[in-house]
Amino acid sequence: MLDAIEAAEFFLALSTRDQADLLDSLGPERSRPWMRLLAPDDAADLVQALPAEVRGRFMALLDPATRGEVTALLAYAEDAAGGVMNPRYMRLRPEITVEVAIRYLRRQAIRGIEVIDYAYVLGPDLRLLGVVSFRELFAAPPEKLVQEIMHTDLVTVTEETDQEAVAHLLVEEGLLAIPVVDASGTMKGVVTADDVVGVVQEEATEDIQKIGGSEALDEPYLQIGFSDMVRKRGRWLAVLFIGEMLTATAMGFFEKEIARAVVLALFVPLIISSGGNSGSQAATLVIRAMALSEIRLRDWWRVARREVLTGLVLGLLLGLIGLIRILVWQAIGDVYGAHYLLVALTVAGSLLGVVMFGTLAGSMLPFVLRRFGADPASASAPFVATLVDVTGLVIYFTVARLLLGGTLL
Amino acid sequence: MLDAIEAAEFFLALSTRDQADLLDSLGPERSRPWMRLLAPDDAADLVQALPAEVRGRFMALLDPATRGEVTALLAYAEDAAGGVMNPRYMRLRPEITVEVAIRYLRRQAIRGIEVIDYAYVLGPDLRLLGVVSFRELFAAPPEKLVQEIMHTDLVTVTEETDQEAVAHLLVEEGLLAIPVVDASGTMKGVVTADDVVGVVQEEATEDIQKIGGSEALDEPYLQIGFSDMVRKRGRWLAVLFIGEMLTATAMGFFEKEIARAVVLALFVPLIISSGGNSGSQAATLVIRAMALSEIRLRDWWRVARREVLTGLVLGLLLGLIGLIRILVWQAIGDVYGAHYLLVALTVAGSLLGVVMFGTLAGSMLPFVLRRFGADPASASAPFVATLVDVTGLVIYFTVARLLLGGTLL
Repeated sequence: MLDAIEAAEFFLALSTRDQADLLDSLGPERSRPWMRLLAPDDAADLVQALPAEVRGRFMALLDPATRGEVTALLAYAEDAAGGVMNPRYMRLRPEITVEVAIRYLRRQAIRGIEVIDYAYVLGPDLRLLGVVSFRELFAAPPEKLVQEIMHTDLVTVTEETDQEAVAHLLVEEGLLAIPVVDASGTMKGVVTADDVVGVVQEEATEDIQKIGGSEALDEPYLQIGFSDMVRKRGRWLAVLFIGEMLTATAMGFFEKEIARAVVLALFVPLIISSGGNSGSQAATLVIRAMALSEIRLRDWWRVARREVLTGLVLGLLLGLIGLIRILVWQAIGDVYGAHYLLVALTVAGSLLGVVMFGTLAGSMLPFVLRRFGADPASASAPFVATLVDVTGLVIYFTVARLLLGGTLL
Repeated sequence: MLDAIEAAEFFLALSTRDQADLLDSLGPERSRPWMRLLAPDDAADLVQALPAEVRGRFMALLDPATRGEVTALLAYAEDAAGGVMNPRYMRLRPEITVEVAIRYLRRQAIRGIEVIDYAYVLGPDLRLLGVVSFRELFAAPPEKLVQEIMHTDLVTVTEETDQEAVAHLLVEEGLLAIPVVDASGTMKGVVTADDVVGVVQEEATEDIQKIGGSEALDEPYLQIGFSDMVRKRGRWLAVLFIGEMLTATAMGFFEKEIARAVVLALFVPLIISSGGNSGSQAATLVIRAMALSEIRLRDWWRVARREVLTGLVLGLLLGLIGLIRILVWQAIGDVYGAHYLLVALTVAGSLLGVVMFGTLAGSMLPFVLRRFGADPASASAPFVATLVDVTGLVIYFTVARLLLGGTLL
């Protein structure tokens, strides 16, 4: 019911998901004019959002040039620069004058190429030679050559650069756009800041949801269907639960000790949760630093050294608090019996061991996952906690056997 | 040792933190030319990065017009649109012709105003009337008036709009920039996509670090000093540890039950960790949905209903797995004694209760924190786990008393 221009604007303003749903329900025959409205990077996003079985039919609607570009874009990993770049950008030749360049840019703008502060200067082989801002072009004498005013110290990324790293570079350098070049220096496209905002936000959401011990929901909380949500959450909870069942087995090994000294059981939750907390803390910090490219795989040794030391200090801190807690309670109410001092030392010593192990395991697990090609964010807080719980029990009861053997045990 | 232009470019390419460190070490006297290079929003960021006691001296270096703009920017909350917007943008009057408009925009570009695809059309009272893209200007007949080709269906934000919400809108609408207007419709500035990328990334980092049970580090992992890091992590770990000490007290209340039926102790870690896992999962999903403005405070009732139902299903799932686990182990090795069926029902029933409580508590805690003006992300996975651990023990032993009273207990 809208006129053609309004309808086009409405369509372009829709989210990729809504566009895909609309076209999918219209069917390929009636979608041609809509598909042709889209820039190649948007068309690629839309095609990716369509059901796999109809993608080919929608690709066929594009004009051959755009189809080639979309096919190229779809070949890139979704989270690499190549997957979000726009292959159309303002381009100039180095040997033209400023006056010609401005006329030429104006024509490119009319053809629908996004205006974003810079134009890229390409050689005849499409190699990227330099960049020039509109401001510099407008301010320069009209008869100067582009190559005389262009900058040649370029910030570029490759098609494989991870999108989070591209976002990081954009922020660091304060740029609106970064050119994407291949190994031979040929310009492939431009990633603009608006391309990466959504990606950065989405990837952070996925990481956060994984760290919280769930699969990524992929949909807003209030919009995802109940059964989808339960499935995505239940799967991880069940896996964690099955892992956690090992604690019952581990506790079984120490059943005799618990029967002889029930006081030991009282501190089980405190000790295993301290390991879990220090582990999830370390894992989360490392996962985020990896996502921001602050830490690379080869840094594992630096991180390990740092975390052992951190774990030592944190373990001493918690051990000391635990020691004081038991001594104070004992002084007030004689709750821990004649061997309270040995019990206190057992708890404090175990805390030191458990926190050190938790910190180290939590910080190394993301490295292990990444090394084997898995997502480091899967080293979620609950996952690390589960891992550390079993070990924590073993550490605790081993220390107890050592310190309390012959007295309480 | 660089010539003036190179030096200026080098300075502008530095991160805000490096710029601030440089100028702080140069001192206000030698900083004047550098300060004057900066756009108002960048100058405001730099001033914010300087030590509080020297900020005034650096503000005094700015020309009066810029100083006014910087002061206005500094008055906004750092995480609101007003805090990142650029008060300088391409502006046009509605009654000029396209030809005049293009000449005028070119002059503005030369004066250093960022070129970002759109120009904003303002009335004499600075009210925002419309927006026009460069493409439309270049393609329009030169004698047409700007008001004839401008769009009047505007997407705007206010100065108070949260930056995450601005980022969300930019992505949704596929825009490079969004105008900021006040309640009366007066244009205050423009937020561009590159302004929010960094913010989005930073806020996600802070949230992730808090969810992992640490204070926000505010510095890259490998760069933060050891003692700073230990302090930021140790503080939260100590708080959680002190909270977790309640588990020892709670266990103390059930010491007699444990002494009589040691088998009960075996499942303590499994049960409390299941509550912790389901709680951190729910808390994390709600925290992220809040950060993305998918959920507002008034949605608490919808979320509560949803989570009770989710908790019920997840609790039944884990309870069932637990039941099967005990029955299978019993069939293989007779490990749980004559009353194994009652033990199995105790564990399964407790799991249902603990998971339901964990899910509800985890999902509501962020609402409570936000309601009282605290950061919902402080409802970290370890915080929720600690909260749920104590309750989990009470639920478990209460169910045990009900089901095992007269037999095992």
